[in-house]
Amino acid sequence: MKADGFCDAVREIGDLRLVSGGDRMTPEQIADHVREADVYMTGHGTTPLPDILAKNPGRLRYVCGITGTMRPFVPVALVEAGIKLTNWGDATAGSVAEGAMALLLATLKGIHEHTQNARANGWGLPEDATGGLLEGLKIGVFGCGVIGRRFLELLRPFDSIVRVYDPYATDVPDWCERVHSLEALFQDAEAIVLHAGWTPETDKIIKADLLRRLPDHGVIINTARGGIIDQDALFAELKSGRLRAGLDVLEPDRLPPDHPARYWSNVILTAHQVGQGWPGRSNRIQKYHQYALDNLRRFTNGESLRFIMDVERYHRST
Amino acid sequence: MKADGFCDAVREIGDLRLVSGGDRMTPEQIADHVREADVYMTGHGTTPLPDILAKNPGRLRYVCGITGTMRPFVPVALVEAGIKLTNWGDATAGSVAEGAMALLLATLKGIHEHTQNARANGWGLPEDATGGLLEGLKIGVFGCGVIGRRFLELLRPFDSIVRVYDPYATDVPDWCERVHSLEALFQDAEAIVLHAGWTPETDKIIKADLLRRLPDHGVIINTARGGIIDQDALFAELKSGRLRAGLDVLEPDRLPPDHPARYWSNVILTAHQVGQGWPGRSNRIQKYHQYALDNLRRFTNGESLRFIMDVERYHRST
Repeated sequence: MKADGFCDAVREIGDLRLVSGGDRMTPEQIADHVREADVYMTGHGTTPLPDILAKNPGRLRYVCGITGTMRPFVPVALVEAGIKLTNWGDATAGSVAEGAMALLLATLKGIHEHTQNARANGWGLPEDATGGLLEGLKIGVFGCGVIGRRFLELLRPFDSIVRVYDPYATDVPDWCERVHSLEALFQDAEAIVLHAGWTPETDKIIKADLLRRLPDHGVIINTARGGIIDQDALFAELKSGRLRAGLDVLEPDRLPPDHPARYWSNVILTAHQVGQGWPGRSNRIQKYHQYALDNLRRFTNGESLRFIMDVERYHRST
Repeated sequence: MKADGFCDAVREIGDLRLVSGGDRMTPEQIADHVREADVYMTGHGTTPLPDILAKNPGRLRYVCGITGTMRPFVPVALVEAGIKLTNWGDATAGSVAEGAMALLLATLKGIHEHTQNARANGWGLPEDATGGLLEGLKIGVFGCGVIGRRFLELLRPFDSIVRVYDPYATDVPDWCERVHSLEALFQDAEAIVLHAGWTPETDKIIKADLLRRLPDHGVIINTARGGIIDQDALFAELKSGRLRAGLDVLEPDRLPPDHPARYWSNVILTAHQVGQGWPGRSNRIQKYHQYALDNLRRFTNGESLRFIMDVERYHRST
């Protein structure tokens, strides 16, 4: 809850009680604190709620989450016990889609290779580097949910040739071609952009045989989840210099110090921050804070909540 | 004339004669070669034509240029003498506009700072760095010609707040606000994108007093010409770390070895190459080659040429 104005705004809706030191409490102590509240707010850095709350939630009726996945913070038992749970919904779809566009353009044009070469007293792309235009580029997009659709809106005026694969989407934008397998998506693509969720079904689904279908200098952009890709297979293609990548996410999310991928000139790494806003700019309350405040007001007024997570959405939101 | 297929395509239209060693010829020798041709083709790397051709052009009736500015290659005296001259017209507008989008997004999100920090065994943006979203960002665009308009098309779905300054444009897109001075453009902008031509009027027109109007972490993107900016003033703001910049062009266009700007973490330099395509990809003939071929065919058929440079356009195209 970094935004200065956010806590003040919560206080206008109800009594805000900030509890710190949760990481030094027993489950029973945590549960006791939470049982005294009608609403519990959770976000990155908050202590996970204990399972025991599900059996005896006390006053608790609503957990208002201000991140995407709730799994690290809220046990599914609470949802099953009928406690309402919401997350940030589509609040960050725009910023993730923007981040994917930034990585796609920067990777394609070798922005990082330019920077490195300038520092080595070179000028321009090194001999073995490859630029590229989005105009006319054949792009495959995996995932056509909220973020994927927003990405496609941003991509549209660039006049790329776009194919989309998403087995669950009811439709895809009419200017894109829909394909019905990942094999078809990779077969005729020069760049692949991932906007799928990370589920047991998609775990490591991008394997060596798919990557091999991309042409030399082909591009992989991942702002979704690292676990969607077989990272060993991808790193082999990147280490050899055959493919290029812009990776906001990895599995695990952070590379160890001195990992060779830190130094590969064909890879941009943005540490799961590429969708980040300009801190302190106009001191605006972020969209996900606005959504949380809106849901708190709705709860207080007995209105229906937005972005409710049932058990299925709980498991699907990663 | 790098594209393999280009010379072959020219040969289908007329007799192509390639003359090399022009840099070791006298003006009279060069003129003698050119006088034997109906059409002379010129591009980056070709020997400048001598003034004396204007008085005695021989057979020459048309100079088909395949770059933007013609000033380094063709003396204005030839245009004044009635020799037809064409350039690449709007062939590269899309790629320059794309390059400006790439630099804007990469600079705003600190792509290069991520890369540098990852190599220093850090992770994520350094403490003193600043990311940013295009969504809601206040952007000032200077220049609403062919490139500026294409840039605005690409920018539109990002939902920025856009103001445009161009004293010569008949109109600006209706979703942008038109302002009537550079002072007004800079006063309320968080990022400035330059798409103006470099003329005596715009030479060093972006000076310290304009730059000072930008907020801390404000962004300057230049894919137009380095000479539009008072580079000493810009470099002072960049050296101090107050502003950020993505610069495809400089004046002169190349930084000397060990110039400190090569190492500034708030600057991306792309060596006038950010609009470059993917070399060898599908071995496609570039759009500006297509335009040149089209004009050669038109000339052969006695049809009117596209992108004719009269004296005014000759001086304005930089």
